Amino acid sequence: MSEYTASIIGGSGYTGGELLRILRKHPDFEAVQTTSRSYSGRKVGSIHPDLRDADLRFSEGEELEEVDVLFSATPKGVTMENIDRYRAVADKVVDLSSDFRLNDIDAYREWYGEHERPDIIQQFEYALPEVNRENLSSADLIAAGGCNATASILGLYPLREILSEDIKIIVDAKVGSSEGGSGGGRSSSHAERSGIIRPYAPTEHRHAAEVSQAVGVEADFTAHAVEMVRGAYATIHVMQDIEKKDMWKRFREEYGEEPFVRFTSGSGIYRYPQPKNVAGTNYGEIGFETGEGRVVIFSAIDNLVKGSAGQAVQAVNISLGLEETRGLGFEGIHPSGTP
Amino acid sequence: MSEYTASIIGGSGYTGGELLRILRKHPDFEAVQTTSRSYSGRKVGSIHPDLRDADLRFSEGEELEEVDVLFSATPKGVTMENIDRYRAVADKVVDLSSDFRLNDIDAYREWYGEHERPDIIQQFEYALPEVNRENLSSADLIAAGGCNATASILGLYPLREILSEDIKIIVDAKVGSSEGGSGGGRSSSHAERSGIIRPYAPTEHRHAAEVSQAVGVEADFTAHAVEMVRGAYATIHVMQDIEKKDMWKRFREEYGEEPFVRFTSGSGIYRYPQPKNVAGTNYGEIGFETGEGRVVIFSAIDNLVKGSAGQAVQAVNISLGLEETRGLGFEGIHPSGTP
Amino acid sequence: MSEYTASIIGGSGYTGGELLRILRKHPDFEAVQTTSRSYSGRKVGSIHPDLRDADLRFSEGEELEEVDVLFSATPKGVTMENIDRYRAVADKVVDLSSDFRLNDIDAYREWYGEHERPDIIQQFEYALPEVNRENLSSADLIAAGGCNATASILGLYPLREILSEDIKIIVDAKVGSSEGGSGGGRSSSHAERSGIIRPYAPTEHRHAAEVSQAVGVEADFTAHAVEMVRGAYATIHVMQDIEKKDMWKRFREEYGEEPFVRFTSGSGIYRYPQPKNVAGTNYGEIGFETGEGRVVIFSAIDNLVKGSAGQAVQAVNISLGLEETRGLGFEGIHPSGTP
Amino acid sequence: MSEYTASIIGGSGYTGGELLRILRKHPDFEAVQTTSRSYSGRKVGSIHPDLRDADLRFSEGEELEEVDVLFSATPKGVTMENIDRYRAVADKVVDLSSDFRLNDIDAYREWYGEHERPDIIQQFEYALPEVNRENLSSADLIAAGGCNATASILGLYPLREILSEDIKIIVDAKVGSSEGGSGGGRSSSHAERSGIIRPYAPTEHRHAAEVSQAVGVEADFTAHAVEMVRGAYATIHVMQDIEKKDMWKRFREEYGEEPFVRFTSGSGIYRYPQPKNVAGTNYGEIGFETGEGRVVIFSAIDNLVKGSAGQAVQAVNISLGLEETRGLGFEGIHPSGTP
Repeated sequence: MSEYTASIIGGSGYTGGELLRILRKHPDFEAVQTTSRSYSGRKVGSIHPDLRDADLRFSEGEELEEVDVLFSATPKGVTMENIDRYRAVADKVVDLSSDFRLNDIDAYREWYGEHERPDIIQQFEYALPEVNRENLSSADLIAAGGCNATASILGLYPLREILSEDIKIIVDAKVGSSEGGSGGGRSSSHAERSGIIRPYAPTEHRHAAEVSQAVGVEADFTAHAVEMVRGAYATIHVMQDIEKKDMWKRFREEYGEEPFVRFTSGSGIYRYPQPKNVAGTNYGEIGFETGEGRVVIFSAIDNLVKGSAGQAVQAVNISLGLEETRGLGFEGIHPSGTP
Repeated sequence: MSEYTASIIGGSGYTGGELLRILRKHPDFEAVQTTSRSYSGRKVGSIHPDLRDADLRFSEGEELEEVDVLFSATPKGVTMENIDRYRAVADKVVDLSSDFRLNDIDAYREWYGEHERPDIIQQFEYALPEVNRENLSSADLIAAGGCNATASILGLYPLREILSEDIKIIVDAKVGSSEGGSGGGRSSSHAERSGIIRPYAPTEHRHAAEVSQAVGVEADFTAHAVEMVRGAYATIHVMQDIEKKDMWKRFREEYGEEPFVRFTSGSGIYRYPQPKNVAGTNYGEIGFETGEGRVVIFSAIDNLVKGSAGQAVQAVNISLGLEETRGLGFEGIHPSGTP
Repeated sequence: MSEYTASIIGGSGYTGGELLRILRKHPDFEAVQTTSRSYSGRKVGSIHPDLRDADLRFSEGEELEEVDVLFSATPKGVTMENIDRYRAVADKVVDLSSDFRLNDIDAYREWYGEHERPDIIQQFEYALPEVNRENLSSADLIAAGGCNATASILGLYPLREILSEDIKIIVDAKVGSSEGGSGGGRSSSHAERSGIIRPYAPTEHRHAAEVSQAVGVEADFTAHAVEMVRGAYATIHVMQDIEKKDMWKRFREEYGEEPFVRFTSGSGIYRYPQPKNVAGTNYGEIGFETGEGRVVIFSAIDNLVKGSAGQAVQAVNISLGLEETRGLGFEGIHPSGTP
Repeated sequence: MSEYTASIIGGSGYTGGELLRILRKHPDFEAVQTTSRSYSGRKVGSIHPDLRDADLRFSEGEELEEVDVLFSATPKGVTMENIDRYRAVADKVVDLSSDFRLNDIDAYREWYGEHERPDIIQQFEYALPEVNRENLSSADLIAAGGCNATASILGLYPLREILSEDIKIIVDAKVGSSEGGSGGGRSSSHAERSGIIRPYAPTEHRHAAEVSQAVGVEADFTAHAVEMVRGAYATIHVMQDIEKKDMWKRFREEYGEEPFVRFTSGSGIYRYPQPKNVAGTNYGEIGFETGEGRVVIFSAIDNLVKGSAGQAVQAVNISLGLEETRGLGFEGIHPSGTP
């Protein structure tokens, strides 16, 4: 029997489905409730075919069961509206939307607009253990970061002490269609979206605020939707001369013991990070090269796992004193198609 | 200056866009009007990026201009409702929906239900010149066939005289996402539809009626949506022993002079038909192999061109006494990605 | 510590890599040796990026270590040549090539040519537990079947008692590029192979022999290479009238308790089997529809898992008295791209 | 009858095939010879399926016919070795390799190494009419540029007068698999290359030299191989504040009359350049956005057309006094899959 119970608000979306998938294999958890207005009463496997054998059904969500951990995989604004209700039934609340990613109310207002609960904004801990493990160890309110932010932070964090304040950092991001959620519309239809390289946040991206918060630098984003379903890939151009051996030293020191950071190097087809290597996994692949007057860092994650549901579970594991890797052991497959 | 004027009802859909594209390069035609309720007032290039440089704008369609040829690229039911209105403004009307593909009212009712204009159903000529060229030469009412029907008819027609009545013919069809039209919905979203092999008409398909009408045999369809945007591919299993040299003779005699049928054979990567070879073109690629107790015929077309807009223009060319290939010269590119 | 040791001959190929991946997570196994002539001395992760964190290196294979189970993931002909050497070092030998799939030497000769070891051909047990579980429970020599054969057998086996001898069965198969192995060549290059529907075994396929052996019927194959890396999909056209409820009854009885057969039905996007649902998993998805004078069965597997390495491990689990599902728990992800 | 004759050295490669395709539809040209060592004697359609109906066969190339224009679509080094032989049989020689793209021998040596014919390096004209039209009008020696260079130059050229010397320019490039040529190898096999985002020139790219030559600025490249067969996409990050209206003015003035530059803007799915919009065409799509302290320019071309064979024909048209657009009228299709 599992030790902990969990519920997932918004279980029919892609992030919610990913939480269901991960918790289903997690030895210490049982998902006892998941909500969906559109699919209430239907089995979760009717929407998520990987869960065909699961017994759980979507419920309306009018009544929330008491659980150890409640995950909110909802659109922007829902968690901040319902947070008191969530906390009343759960010891720990993990939000996967953008509602509580920023601890600074001014930064939130600048990027997202008004916030309904500025009073508790600072109580949330950012779910990226690689930069915030210590604070997560006793956290009851956890906010999972954005996928492009996660990829970027992982790539930049080891350099935080040597990045000059006035240098330019450009994150040229490439992301898959699952990032847009499970909704439809012509722009995300297969016929229109197949094979594209479509800029969607050419000069500004809200995830820059998270990078600034976590790493202390300003990074400019240019994000492109590309031919993938899963994956967030950040090519991070840092306009600063850094010696290769210094880069190596910092990345090794930072990530040498990290269970979910794979450092790529050497020769061969996979000497740089690759989204399809991390599809379905909680791993981040990081690599880099140094050039004249700049370094380039490559960072690949699965937007729905390390970029969302996986980092959330990793953070919860830590907050419960469990081994950090519990339930997150999948290491991917090879070869594979477009992730 | 172009000799003939044309209008396209329903120009924002994929079939309508394809007509606009073809007519734009057609030396004898000028598209003077195209209608779209959703995009009225906008330039056609705002929806169809290949038409960025075109001046034409979508109109409401309340008033139809007088033209030589009116193409109706509308959903099922629209043409039969508006046919008198169309005929009042155009010398020739070409319907690309299923409304007038069948000349037999009973067959129509069996497959589609009631018909509003059974009185004129037999006046339409089927737009596949390879099987109906003679009748098209003076046609004023033309009905473009379905894409799976077209691929199947092209594959079976040369054998019509030797196919036994009681043999089984299975068309295992594979089609691209543009077949579903430009609408959205979760099932056609990129995240769900990418990389699929999804049966959608497992044992019955309306296009069987057209095959029966054109070739005189019953063919059972099993259609799959696959990872393509454009393309209809028919693997036609005929459970009859036919000698290879007899096959060759019949296909050569039938198609030796056809401008838009490419017969594949020999060795190499492209010894069988291939959807990506015909993408954007009005060509059908046909090939076959003989086995024990059966023959297999492979037939590949672009569903939007030879399977719809292209065959329509080809038929109109014939009906106007123009050279059949006018405006349809594109022969494809190589290499190319998923069509 | 793991209870059993294993070695993989031919570990740099896709099937070998898949064995390494599965055994790495298998709680009862440790892969102690893997061979590769081309990559001897290199870490397995240099070829298979999902194994980046593994310590194992490829060895020449001149000297084989003593192990409990030796898997031979080699091209046709290698196992039959080395079988005595393999048996000398391992209690159990599992061959993943076509060398020992057929127990009948005449059938082998008809489809493959001469066999070097007809004397032991009947000692091998076919690795598909769904049809051969009992015999596998004490097997020391195991032969994993072909991927198209596996998909077809899973689809046809429940009907074996009612299939008429003289009916026609057509397997219209669609497979991914990993089926062709890790070698190169123009026909399998990305530029040429992307987005194809390319018949490669239009009227005859060696896997028909395995279907005949396992199900007792003749099935004609027409196989197509399609846009996938992983996956084998069989659309099985059976030209026989079978009632739907009879179909249901037989499939339920046969597979109701099978741990790795998912029966699809109902409504929605995933009411039929789908290769991307089973990518990376040992599951077979099976569904069907009945039509007039025929039934159509759809069967989807991952060619490298259920169609090869996964079924091999499943069979070994059984032969060792382990729980059949050990090490094979991955159930896939959703959404995902082209598998 | 066509006015001019042409031959293509290296006709079995992708660039050579593209030249054959374009010239086949070019009203003023006839390709009378094409060479290929590997495929000598075979019809061009056996390699390039879009040329199935062409009569031309590959020849050894031992004897070159006298032609008006000789195109050399060969690997690096071949043209410089054979240039005298080529000039002896042709009035005009167009090289599509990197041999004569740089007019400065020092720049050549820095990026490529030794050059066999430094004596004539300055006689070649760069085949990009948008930046070199005047010089092309009487050119007999023409060098077609690199695809990433072409995309970048088109994006940067209108700004050449205002770009500060010391600003940083980063070209984050994404290219398709046809760029790698028609050869094989594991890294370009479908199973390995599908769905990748693979950096291949992380900090240095030879095409930077061409950008420097044409625009007068240093641009740093980071190039990625992505899931496309055709296409080169440049996201050009310019770390300089430029006002939007100034950008507009300069791009409009520069490209307002250019027949092959499409300026994208406005709203909708296609408000930024898109590789699949230009697949098979000689068009470059250009768009931009301005941010704080930087501008981002997006530039999309088909690497084999505008990035190679198409620009070559466009330049030849100019050099012969023909209308520049002759033979290059294809404007693409919509919708379409991965280009």
